[in-house]
Amino acid sequence: MYDWRFEDMAPGMRFESLGKTLSEAEIIDFAFQYDPQPFHIDAAYAEAGPYGGIIASGIHTIGTALRMMVQARVFAPETVLGSPGVEELRWVQPVRPGDTIRSTGEILEVRASQSRPERGIVRYRMDVLNQRDEVVMTMTSTTFVRRQPAAGAAA
Amino acid sequence: MYDWRFEDMAPGMRFESLGKTLSEAEIIDFAFQYDPQPFHIDAAYAEAGPYGGIIASGIHTIGTALRMMVQARVFAPETVLGSPGVEELRWVQPVRPGDTIRSTGEILEVRASQSRPERGIVRYRMDVLNQRDEVVMTMTSTTFVRRQPAAGAAA
Repeated sequence: MYDWRFEDMAPGMRFESLGKTLSEAEIIDFAFQYDPQPFHIDAAYAEAGPYGGIIASGIHTIGTALRMMVQARVFAPETVLGSPGVEELRWVQPVRPGDTIRSTGEILEVRASQSRPERGIVRYRMDVLNQRDEVVMTMTSTTFVRRQPAAGAAA
Repeated sequence: MYDWRFEDMAPGMRFESLGKTLSEAEIIDFAFQYDPQPFHIDAAYAEAGPYGGIIASGIHTIGTALRMMVQARVFAPETVLGSPGVEELRWVQPVRPGDTIRSTGEILEVRASQSRPERGIVRYRMDVLNQRDEVVMTMTSTTFVRRQPAAGAAA
């Protein structure tokens, strides 16, 4: 239902992934390697802290949301050429052990690259929701995707 | 030399972490779990693609840079209260197997929270450099840190 190519996309098109439940073990393991702050990896410390328990690293939330989006095949994988970056990223609410998160989103802008005719530029917004449909993260990002040569274009 | 608390920080202060070499195995393993796009996990596909070989997931770059910054103890760990998000994040250049990346950065702004007197707000810029001192990623982000009660403040 997705597998969108550049030519398929238009502003307003929406997507949604399946969910992933984050265990305490996975949250601690990820943070221990990539974001070892005590409120992500030390249960007793986190219990006494401002969040009242361990919360997932925001990087873990991005990675999980991105994986679920890739797995949903929103963009046709063989057309994706990478991303130049993220405009805005907000961690709105903590993700806690046992929470299930999924990615939802919307295409914001679809345009051809001025400098590289084989390349299209797609801006999209991704909202990550938990099992109570609360937004835990929002992100606006850009992806480069391959364009088909225009029919009848000079070779 | 770091372990900065809110009261220690001022705009213009700079930090730098030690480096981390990313192996091809680690790049593929990370991306397989959190960003399974073919130019991150399939060597033959990536070889024929626009980057001419496997490149690290941008999420892997963020996580590695953050880990090295946490490990350098830029902010005193027991004062950090989490992050509301990232203003801007750019992947400027690919990170390839064998590359060594490190975090450098600068404090941009230090101010007290208006609504929560126990909380300070620190904006910083992080530049991630490779072994040739080329910038591979830039990020501007905010962290909440605990403030000391003002001396002589009402209890």
